[in-house]
Amino acid sequence: MTASPLFVPPYYSVIFTSLLPEHTKEYGETSDKIYELAQTQRGFLAMDSVRDAAGHGVTISYWRTEDDVIKFRKIAEHRHAQQSGRNTFYERYEVRVAKVEKEYAWRRKADGAGEYVKRGP
Amino acid sequence: MTASPLFVPPYYSVIFTSLLPEHTKEYGETSDKIYELAQTQRGFLAMDSVRDAAGHGVTISYWRTEDDVIKFRKIAEHRHAQQSGRNTFYERYEVRVAKVEKEYAWRRKADGAGEYVKRGP
Repeated sequence: MTASPLFVPPYYSVIFTSLLPEHTKEYGETSDKIYELAQTQRGFLAMDSVRDAAGHGVTISYWRTEDDVIKFRKIAEHRHAQQSGRNTFYERYEVRVAKVEKEYAWRRKADGAGEYVKRGP
Repeated sequence: MTASPLFVPPYYSVIFTSLLPEHTKEYGETSDKIYELAQTQRGFLAMDSVRDAAGHGVTISYWRTEDDVIKFRKIAEHRHAQQSGRNTFYERYEVRVAKVEKEYAWRRKADGAGEYVKRGP
């Protein structure tokens, strides 16, 4: 799943990189729950999530303000703790909170030509 | 490949999300060249890159300053243009430039216990 529509900067992103030794059913259920929770939170914009066959994953969630990020982090951590996620699922993970200042996008149009879009300063 | 060591914020990230309909040899070669180029550039810190079987990819490069990002973007775009990358490889892509303000990490230690690290304000 990779949503990533365009928003108007500035806004916030949470970059979650991880190594998952084994993709269990429990992990999938916890991930799904956190994604569902995120979507109901104030300031949620979108989420991009990709994991490869070796277990390397990147999930980026986008939020309107830093305050929205802080609120969601508390909820996600609580959920992870409930599921003992941190100690069970991952070999390692990193969380980075980053303010998106500029964005650009390119799309292939129906006629095959490209369309280039820029947002922000 | 997911490197993502810990740095001390603030620093910059370039979040590149894309959909690649087909993983060709030419694409692999161009990607490798851009990664090699990045590593030689001033201010380069690290890169995380993951693509799944459906062609959804996220590549995040980390840089010391915004100026380093701008310089690298020009080089990467030039290389992509040389390879007609934008028009050949991708169905769509987004580029976001984001300032990393905080970061946290968790590692599983040799004894199986976890270690939690925080950097930044």
